[in-house]
Amino acid sequence: MTDVLHSFTLADMVRQQARVLPGTTAIVDGDDRYTFADMDRAANRWANWLAARSVGLGDRVAWHGPGDVRTLHLLFAAAKLGAALVPLNVRNTAEETARALETAAPALVLSTTPLDGAIDADAQAPAVRAAPADEPAIDPDDERPVLGVFTGAFSGRPKLALLTHRGIVTQSLVTAAYRLIEPGATRYLASGPMFHVGVHLKLLANYLFGGLSVLAPHPDAAALCRLIERERVTSALLFTPSIDQMIQANADRRHDLSSLRDVPAQPSDPSDGAWYEMTSCLRASGPTGYGQTETYAMVSFEARGPSGTGAFGRPSPVAAVGVARPGGIESAPGEPGEITVRGPQIMAGYLGEPVGIRHRTGDLGVFHPDGTLDFVGPVQEVIKTGMENVYPAEVEIALRRHPAVAEACVIGIPDPQWGSSVRAVVEAGAECTADELIEHTRRHIASYKKPRSVIFVAKLPRNAAGQVDRGAVHQKWGS
Amino acid sequence: MTDVLHSFTLADMVRQQARVLPGTTAIVDGDDRYTFADMDRAANRWANWLAARSVGLGDRVAWHGPGDVRTLHLLFAAAKLGAALVPLNVRNTAEETARALETAAPALVLSTTPLDGAIDADAQAPAVRAAPADEPAIDPDDERPVLGVFTGAFSGRPKLALLTHRGIVTQSLVTAAYRLIEPGATRYLASGPMFHVGVHLKLLANYLFGGLSVLAPHPDAAALCRLIERERVTSALLFTPSIDQMIQANADRRHDLSSLRDVPAQPSDPSDGAWYEMTSCLRASGPTGYGQTETYAMVSFEARGPSGTGAFGRPSPVAAVGVARPGGIESAPGEPGEITVRGPQIMAGYLGEPVGIRHRTGDLGVFHPDGTLDFVGPVQEVIKTGMENVYPAEVEIALRRHPAVAEACVIGIPDPQWGSSVRAVVEAGAECTADELIEHTRRHIASYKKPRSVIFVAKLPRNAAGQVDRGAVHQKWGS
Repeated sequence: MTDVLHSFTLADMVRQQARVLPGTTAIVDGDDRYTFADMDRAANRWANWLAARSVGLGDRVAWHGPGDVRTLHLLFAAAKLGAALVPLNVRNTAEETARALETAAPALVLSTTPLDGAIDADAQAPAVRAAPADEPAIDPDDERPVLGVFTGAFSGRPKLALLTHRGIVTQSLVTAAYRLIEPGATRYLASGPMFHVGVHLKLLANYLFGGLSVLAPHPDAAALCRLIERERVTSALLFTPSIDQMIQANADRRHDLSSLRDVPAQPSDPSDGAWYEMTSCLRASGPTGYGQTETYAMVSFEARGPSGTGAFGRPSPVAAVGVARPGGIESAPGEPGEITVRGPQIMAGYLGEPVGIRHRTGDLGVFHPDGTLDFVGPVQEVIKTGMENVYPAEVEIALRRHPAVAEACVIGIPDPQWGSSVRAVVEAGAECTADELIEHTRRHIASYKKPRSVIFVAKLPRNAAGQVDRGAVHQKWGS
Repeated sequence: MTDVLHSFTLADMVRQQARVLPGTTAIVDGDDRYTFADMDRAANRWANWLAARSVGLGDRVAWHGPGDVRTLHLLFAAAKLGAALVPLNVRNTAEETARALETAAPALVLSTTPLDGAIDADAQAPAVRAAPADEPAIDPDDERPVLGVFTGAFSGRPKLALLTHRGIVTQSLVTAAYRLIEPGATRYLASGPMFHVGVHLKLLANYLFGGLSVLAPHPDAAALCRLIERERVTSALLFTPSIDQMIQANADRRHDLSSLRDVPAQPSDPSDGAWYEMTSCLRASGPTGYGQTETYAMVSFEARGPSGTGAFGRPSPVAAVGVARPGGIESAPGEPGEITVRGPQIMAGYLGEPVGIRHRTGDLGVFHPDGTLDFVGPVQEVIKTGMENVYPAEVEIALRRHPAVAEACVIGIPDPQWGSSVRAVVEAGAECTADELIEHTRRHIASYKKPRSVIFVAKLPRNAAGQVDRGAVHQKWGS
């Protein structure tokens, strides 16, 4: 662990921003505006409220509620106590939430909806407002976890990636160096869910550099348009479905969206000029880098050098990226292997599972001789549908719980709106319908993970070892 | 100490740049050009040469020679061994060099001029070229020292500030975030001496981000003009005397200096338009931030927010800056105190002297209510003359060694060309001349530290405790 002298934590960030830019607006949440000084005071009140409930160094606090300003207050409060915040996915089923809580083992759970063992967050508002605003007298070092994010259900069971102060601060600096935020000038619309690092990345970098961020916990297209106009938003985490809806909602150009110039996606019909007329966005190009939750977003950047063979740019200036053969030996240039990373941005580990000398990403990549990187696909598969990652293993486990399912293989098929959609290829041992199976999975896992289509087959293709041959399933039913 | 998984060292930087931008020119040294791959190989050869001479983890290597490419090869070689490079000031007297070596206690000394106990660097060139270019099998963590710089002779004896991998990498990211270098686009002329962090800051940041740097170990005005033109230099560490000489040398506009746009100083006559016509520099404004060797350059930035009361900007996003009363308690806003800093950029310590929970800078500052910072002056005095820091205590000690000097007080007086110049106010116990005293100090300390003027007084003003009253000396003879 780093000593405190050489640490710079999110607690330091929150405290120092309050001192350095006390009257500057940091966060807009609906009609509420918070200066950096307000945020610091609120974080202290929450920290003292949590400390009075015995939350302390090394603990986790779970948040089961909307991605409003309380998520940030709690994150900063946890930071000040040397604890970590775990924002839960509110789209989870009760069963998934129970499993997530079992995995996260939090010292305290706050929820805005009824949840076993949780404290009612709304009911506590007066108590938190009445808590002292003094700075807690704890100085955690910066290699501690401060944010826990569920990820990588390769095994069919989500793991909790514990991200550190140092990782978040380092990636924030890189984010500013590559102008993904403009120090002090970005006005960021954080419209995505707070249990994704994608939202935290720019939100926290923007906070560190003194910019304004706008939270939109319950976004609809008209509300997003109003917020962008009112707050002169320059950067927003929007995806194709939202963009399409905003084009519709603003068809009469009633909202001035001309301040918006940085959005990672494009309309479903890229040739439609409306989006580029109503905003200052330039037509989005290909992928701009490679990253994952465990590395707190990107560890390669297109902007890192002249374009070359690989579509995912070159490794970040502060990530030692490698590509390795199964035994751990470096692959030759041009030869695919598992992407591995060392660097300050790497998570402390999954809860209960420290990382080795290098982080193995679980993703296949190629390092080309010109120094560029390609992301080939997961070593084990993940289906990216909209903003969500669906892990086939997890859906397969749910399917196998149905008495009629003998074996199942879940794959992603191309989908014009969502990127991919979930398809189940099923060996049935008894009669059942696609709708029955979809409804069955829906009861066990989040709705967005359920198969959109089910194909019944007499026998799934298998390899010599008797395991389902996923490649063959892809080839036959993958489009 | 950070674990290796979460480290990113200068060794990682050198290795990864060779992989990511193998054919890109990294360093130009006179007529020699080195790609990132060349630099990595040369660093490995030096590392293996050093390792064969038993240099290893935790050692120091002293370099007594010009600031040419070998300084970087040795720095990177030291990085790869977990050792630190100590570049010595070649303007030192033999006595000062001996004292510096006594302080630094290096495992090995390389020199290009005859020096007791040193290895002749020039004579070793063939042996180094013949050393293996394999990567040394050492992975140091990034909180180790990698660069030792002499500083802060408050006590009259220089101390060795040990700067870490993590500190240098973090400050490099901040340097890019605030566009002191432009990632991958800056072409930097490193014309200053390599025993100053001022030169290393942009040189190493530019290396990390893939830019080109030009070394000019023996600069004269005409040579600088030629280099700027030939290499299309965009940024240079030039000070007023060099700028004045370059204006002269390029009076006939024979050199196209239009690529140059970023220089920290201005001509001695700021109203002279010639410099701004021959370059693309904008007229330099006031100070852009506060920093020191111990913090590896700047920990406050003008660009950090809107301008306010203080002239030194606001604390860096990753430095927890405070201002404290003598007892260590935080000063009130607006109240002067000693500037203290916590953060990853802080040195590991002076050799043999670890830092406490906060680094005390030895500088007086004020934190204004609007979050801006002012640098008031040293807690103990330093005279900034050109690029050099002269510590009065050191000059006073030298003066007192002269038999005719009863007491001496050394102060800085304003100097149009050098910022300040050194003045000695002397109580003589016997007859002597100013020239005699200047020549005497010249024999004991570097020439730039010698008094430019000597004033003889019957009695120096003293305080109640009988100590020389420096304030009164300043008031009476300080201009």
